[in-house]
Amino acid sequence: MISTKMQEQVQGSSVIRAMFEEGKRLAEIHGVENVFDFSLGNPNVEPPEEVNKAIIEILNTENLLSIHGYMNNSGYEGVRAEIAKSLNDKYGTAFTLNNILMTVGAAGGLNVILKTLLNPKDEVITFAPYFVEYRSYVRNYDGELVIVSPNTLDFQPNLAEFREKITPKTKAVIINSPNNPTGVIYSEEIIIKLSAILREKQKEFGTDIYLISDEPYRELAYENAEVPYLTKYYENAIIGYSFSKSLSLPGERIGYLVIPDSAADFQNIIIAANIANRILGFVNAPSLFQRVVAKCLNAKVDIDAYNRNRELLYNGLLSYGYQCIKPEGAFYLFVKTPIESDVEFCNLAKQKNILIVPGTAFGCPGYVRIAYCVAYKTIERALPGFKALIDQIKKSNKVI
Amino acid sequence: MISTKMQEQVQGSSVIRAMFEEGKRLAEIHGVENVFDFSLGNPNVEPPEEVNKAIIEILNTENLLSIHGYMNNSGYEGVRAEIAKSLNDKYGTAFTLNNILMTVGAAGGLNVILKTLLNPKDEVITFAPYFVEYRSYVRNYDGELVIVSPNTLDFQPNLAEFREKITPKTKAVIINSPNNPTGVIYSEEIIIKLSAILREKQKEFGTDIYLISDEPYRELAYENAEVPYLTKYYENAIIGYSFSKSLSLPGERIGYLVIPDSAADFQNIIIAANIANRILGFVNAPSLFQRVVAKCLNAKVDIDAYNRNRELLYNGLLSYGYQCIKPEGAFYLFVKTPIESDVEFCNLAKQKNILIVPGTAFGCPGYVRIAYCVAYKTIERALPGFKALIDQIKKSNKVI
Repeated sequence: MISTKMQEQVQGSSVIRAMFEEGKRLAEIHGVENVFDFSLGNPNVEPPEEVNKAIIEILNTENLLSIHGYMNNSGYEGVRAEIAKSLNDKYGTAFTLNNILMTVGAAGGLNVILKTLLNPKDEVITFAPYFVEYRSYVRNYDGELVIVSPNTLDFQPNLAEFREKITPKTKAVIINSPNNPTGVIYSEEIIIKLSAILREKQKEFGTDIYLISDEPYRELAYENAEVPYLTKYYENAIIGYSFSKSLSLPGERIGYLVIPDSAADFQNIIIAANIANRILGFVNAPSLFQRVVAKCLNAKVDIDAYNRNRELLYNGLLSYGYQCIKPEGAFYLFVKTPIESDVEFCNLAKQKNILIVPGTAFGCPGYVRIAYCVAYKTIERALPGFKALIDQIKKSNKVI
Repeated sequence: MISTKMQEQVQGSSVIRAMFEEGKRLAEIHGVENVFDFSLGNPNVEPPEEVNKAIIEILNTENLLSIHGYMNNSGYEGVRAEIAKSLNDKYGTAFTLNNILMTVGAAGGLNVILKTLLNPKDEVITFAPYFVEYRSYVRNYDGELVIVSPNTLDFQPNLAEFREKITPKTKAVIINSPNNPTGVIYSEEIIIKLSAILREKQKEFGTDIYLISDEPYRELAYENAEVPYLTKYYENAIIGYSFSKSLSLPGERIGYLVIPDSAADFQNIIIAANIANRILGFVNAPSLFQRVVAKCLNAKVDIDAYNRNRELLYNGLLSYGYQCIKPEGAFYLFVKTPIESDVEFCNLAKQKNILIVPGTAFGCPGYVRIAYCVAYKTIERALPGFKALIDQIKKSNKVI
C-alpha cells in the first residue's frame, strides 16, 4: 500500500531500528547507566544560557501575534539581515538579507535547495564517508547520488576520483566539513583545488555545478582550526547551516541557506527556494526560534566539554592499539576496526554494552563511528570495554 | 538552471507576488491603515495566554537538553499520548500514542502522508474550491490532483461527480472542513455518503483509498457547529491537524497526523511516515512547541472575535446586494462576484484599496475569498468601499 520508494526506505531502516531496539533491550537488562550509547549525534552539552534568556526577552517585549505568526516564507527580514551582517563580520563576505533563507534545520535547507535544482536523473556527487541521509534527500527529487570513494589516508576528499566522476549530468556536489562521521575539516588547499576542478568541468561541459556545503558542525572546531568559508572560494557555493550543534538546539529545527549573488541563475534560485520551502510543507522556519537565534549569533555551546571528551577517548583508544586520525571538529571519532568486518566489530562491541555505528552505513567499511557527545563519565566507564574488546580480538588472532 | 518543476512553480507564483507588491505599493501611497488587506489567512486573534505560560513553565522546570533536543522522529511519546487521550475524550475514539505523529504543521503532515502513499501517476481527488497548495503537495510526489467541480448551491462536495472520478488509480482523497476558502463545514450526512462511495469503489477496484482530512480550522466552528471526526465514519481516514489557527501559532509549524489502527497497511504506514518525516528534512516537529501544545490542548483562541467579524462583514455585504452563503467555520467569506470575472472584480476592489483573492485561485471562478481574520475596525472601514464597488458595478450595468 505504501509507495515503492518508501518500501525501500522501510526495508533499509530496519537495521537501524533493530539497533535501537537492541539498545533498549540492553538497557533493560543491565541498567541504562551500564549501556554506553555512542551511536547518536545528539548534543549532550547544554544550550548556552543566552538561548533561554532570549526566549524570555522576546516573550516579554514583543507582540504576541508577531512572535508566533506567519512571515515571508524565507523568514523574518530582520533576522536574515542580522545573520548576513554576522557572516560578513566573521568572514569578510558581503551578504544581505536577500542571500539568506531561514530553514527547518540544515536537513530542511538541503531539501529546499535540492528540490530547487534537481531534475530527475541529475547527479549529485559526495565524498565517502558521507552522512547517510544525503542518499534519501537526493532520491526525494529523483536525482542520483554518486559516491567518491574514501581516502583513508587522511579522509580529505579524493580529488583524482572526483574529477573523473563529474559528468554533464552533475548538478551539485555536497560536502560536509567538519565531517560526519570522521570529524575531519577539509583543508583550504583542498577547497581551492576542488573549486578549480569544478570550474574546469563547468567550462568543459558548459554546465553550472553547485557546491552545497552542509555545515551543522562549523562552530565545533577544536584548537582554533579554520573551516574555510566556501563562498569565498567558489562562486556557485551554497551553504546549508544549522544551529542544532552550535547552540544545542537539534529538536527546534532551525537553520538557514546562504545563496550568494555570484551563484549562476541567482534570481531564479532565490525565488524557487522560497517557493520550495513553502510547498515542501515547511512553509517557514519556526518563528520564535528565528528570533532566538538572531539574538544568539555570538553565543556558543561549551566546546571545551566536547574537546575533553575527544582527548579522553582518542588517547584512550590509541593507547589500547586502535588506529584513528585525530579529528579537528564535530564530535565523532572514525576508528579503524581491528577486524575486517565493521559490522561484526559493532556486534562484538555490543557484547560489552557499547553501541557504535559501522562505517558501512557511511559508505566506508572497515571503520566505526563513535559519537562522543556523551557524558565524560560515560567515556571513562566505557574505556575498559574498548580495551577488553581489542585485547580479545588480538588473542583470537583475528586482528588485521 | 533551476529544475523544470520549479520553473513552472516560479511562473505560477508571479501573480501572487504581483499582488503582494501591489499591496505594498498601495500602502506606501495611501498609508497602511487605508489599505484593507483581506488576502491572507493569517490569524489576527492573539494566542491564548496559556501558550506563553506553558513556554515559561517548561523553561523553568524541565531539563534544557531535553527541551531543545532530538527525540523519536514521530515526536515525544508523552506528547503523543496526551494528544491521543484528548482526542479520545472529545470524540470517543480509542487512539494511543502509536496513532499520533507530530508534524511541522498540517502542511508538513500532508507532505509526509502523501510521500508515504503516492507512486508516480497515482491520483488524488479533491473538491473545488480547494486550497491551492494541494496541487503542489501532490506534484511533489508525482501524483495527479483530480478536481471535482464545485457545487455552488451550498459548497458541500459534489458526490455524483466524485463517484465518477474515482478510478483504480485513485490513492487518496483530500478534504478540508471547515473549508478554505468557503468556510463551509461538510455535514455528517455528506461524510457518511462520501464514505459509502469510497467503500463501494474500494470493493469494485480492489484498492484502498485513503481519505485525508486537512483540519487546521477544526476548532474555528461557530454557534457550536459540529465538525464530524472522520475516523469514526471511514476506516481509511487519516487526519492532518494543525495548531496554527486553534492557538494562533502559524509561524511555529506545529501539528500532527492521526493514523488509525483501522487504516489499511497501518503498520507500514506508521513506519514509513516516521521515515518520511525524517528524510523530507523535517526530522521532527519543533521540540519546545510539541511540549507547549501538549499543555494547551484545552486552550482556544477567542473565537468570538472572529465571529463578530463574520457577522459584521456577512451582514454588511448582504445588505449591499452581494450574494454569499453564511460560513459556519474558518475565517473566510466566499462571495459571488457581481460581474462574471472574479479577477476583474479583484482589480476593481484594489481601486478601493481592498485586497481579496479571486476564486479562480481555488478552482472556482466567479467568486472571491475575503479573509476576515483582520481587525474589526478594518472591516468597518472597508465596508463603504465594498458598497461603492457594487453600486458602481450596478450603475455600469455590468452586474450578472
